[in-house]
Amino acid sequence: MSTELTLSIEMMGGDDAPDVVIEGLSRFSTNNADMRFLLHGDEAALTPLLEGATDLAAHCEVRHTDIAVSMDDKPSQALRRAKGSSMWNAIECVKNGEASAAFSAGNTGALMAMSMVLLRKMSGVHRPAMTAIWPTMTGTTVVLDVGANLEADAGQLVTYAVMGEAYARAVTGKEKPSVGLLNVGSEDSKGHGVLKEASTLLSTSDLDLNYRGFIEGNDISAGTVDVVVTDGFSGNIALKTAEGTARLVASYLREALTVGPRAKLGALMASKGLRQLRDKMNPSNVNGGVLLGLNGVVVKSHGGADAAGIETALKLAADLAASQYKEEVAAGLARIGDVVAIVDKPKASA
Amino acid sequence: MSTELTLSIEMMGGDDAPDVVIEGLSRFSTNNADMRFLLHGDEAALTPLLEGATDLAAHCEVRHTDIAVSMDDKPSQALRRAKGSSMWNAIECVKNGEASAAFSAGNTGALMAMSMVLLRKMSGVHRPAMTAIWPTMTGTTVVLDVGANLEADAGQLVTYAVMGEAYARAVTGKEKPSVGLLNVGSEDSKGHGVLKEASTLLSTSDLDLNYRGFIEGNDISAGTVDVVVTDGFSGNIALKTAEGTARLVASYLREALTVGPRAKLGALMASKGLRQLRDKMNPSNVNGGVLLGLNGVVVKSHGGADAAGIETALKLAADLAASQYKEEVAAGLARIGDVVAIVDKPKASA
Repeated sequence: MSTELTLSIEMMGGDDAPDVVIEGLSRFSTNNADMRFLLHGDEAALTPLLEGATDLAAHCEVRHTDIAVSMDDKPSQALRRAKGSSMWNAIECVKNGEASAAFSAGNTGALMAMSMVLLRKMSGVHRPAMTAIWPTMTGTTVVLDVGANLEADAGQLVTYAVMGEAYARAVTGKEKPSVGLLNVGSEDSKGHGVLKEASTLLSTSDLDLNYRGFIEGNDISAGTVDVVVTDGFSGNIALKTAEGTARLVASYLREALTVGPRAKLGALMASKGLRQLRDKMNPSNVNGGVLLGLNGVVVKSHGGADAAGIETALKLAADLAASQYKEEVAAGLARIGDVVAIVDKPKASA
Repeated sequence: MSTELTLSIEMMGGDDAPDVVIEGLSRFSTNNADMRFLLHGDEAALTPLLEGATDLAAHCEVRHTDIAVSMDDKPSQALRRAKGSSMWNAIECVKNGEASAAFSAGNTGALMAMSMVLLRKMSGVHRPAMTAIWPTMTGTTVVLDVGANLEADAGQLVTYAVMGEAYARAVTGKEKPSVGLLNVGSEDSKGHGVLKEASTLLSTSDLDLNYRGFIEGNDISAGTVDVVVTDGFSGNIALKTAEGTARLVASYLREALTVGPRAKLGALMASKGLRQLRDKMNPSNVNGGVLLGLNGVVVKSHGGADAAGIETALKLAADLAASQYKEEVAAGLARIGDVVAIVDKPKASA
């Protein structure tokens, strides 16, 4: 971990904020004693929590605000009363250079909207994309976009690929992460025109990507590639469908291991392995989404994350802030400039 | 089960055909002694298999052909040499009334193409849709389209809903199956224009549907609704992503239960429950896709299905053939005629 890194933390968003955020921060700080944290939120609520957390207060500076964005606010509503809120202030510290990355477990739509307004898009990015880290047979895979934009044209998908590849390198340490494009079949002839066009662009050697072509839904969990590129609609459906399926299988398993006294005893004997299984399936291990393509790092935690999940997302924020991610994306975007310009005429829309 | 039903079986398609098809047919026939089967394929291969199967031959009539569609043929290739193939002949028997439903474990694209050519679309259907039966927390859910068409406009989604509802009633016996539209959020404001338009149409009381609005990916496995409507691209991604996730969790579980001698012993003690778990996760239980919207029933089995899976798909074919499915869809399409006409101008394409 790089030294002297400062993270800007939005304390009031999430199901169990601010208590669980302090708890996660405390865990993270214990293993990263050289970091500083700017805490944005209600001082009256935060101060006693900080005093109760061992060795944390010395690394923190509370920036008080009464204003907090509600979890139910629509992005447009949130934006109207954004200024001075804990979320706004947290992101603003990244903009003005006081912090290297921002964190929030609050309202996703509001966070994306404020991040766009405050940090602006990187030059060459038409639409930022939201990432998810996905557990697989071989480790983890980065999937993007999981819901920032419903649709994506070929040029946008290529931009997602370049950003996702640099992001995967920053968070997994792999030298040359492999990239796949999500489709309904792996043959070149499959899928609609936008996908075929994007695939042709991604195959050009000028981009210098480790591009593996089309992949299918089952390839995500199989870990066939390190980065799965898709539009935000399909990505969101895939992510939530996987969550639902994992929950279903877990409920089948609970049933199987409580079906009678022998099963219960067996589960007790196998408890070590089953604990490992539960750890592997714990969403806390892969918590943290990043809106890629902005001039600054903002990490979104799941609103229902526990302290371990908050810690994971904070680690992601720190890793990304300390990495060469932004420089690599900028270089990648410069490389694709000519390639993408062919198909992605700049539009009037933001 | 209705009496005197005849099923038309394509014997040569699938990974282990014709052996496994005979095996599945034999299991099915044992429990449905009043049914007749027309077997399409290579007589020299089929006759000895039939002689080896107890009590099956008497219910079967072999229709010989040398021609079989390869699993790798593209639909266009398959169509060119389709006539006289086991697949073509199997479907033709439904067309000319000799059989009530056709079955195949062969090439999906070829089966869809031949079914469209031979059986034609029902009046009011612009695009047929492929179904999948999905295991859920509460039983099973029908998902369509899982890949017949990559895109769907609002009128097509409404047609899928009407066909899917009638299909769910036929295969689950529920009086008034609930219907949901797959989206990235459950709020009315979510999703792109086509989905909002379809949702508005589905909400009109004229359609007489038990429509529950938008659902998300995790709602599929949760069993929130009985019928999940989506375009073929998203449906295919959801289905394959769920398969991949189930496979991942199963591999985690295998690892957890073999991590050491205590875990192995525990697994042995819990074997009854774990066997139930394996049964629940066995894809054979939900085998069988149907291309809805044609003048005739054609059931597609997974190419890698075992005998139990073939039996499940044959039961689906028989249930559907014996049901009022076709009449109900026709009535539903008539009801929606006016509603859909507003948005779904008939196109020149097939």
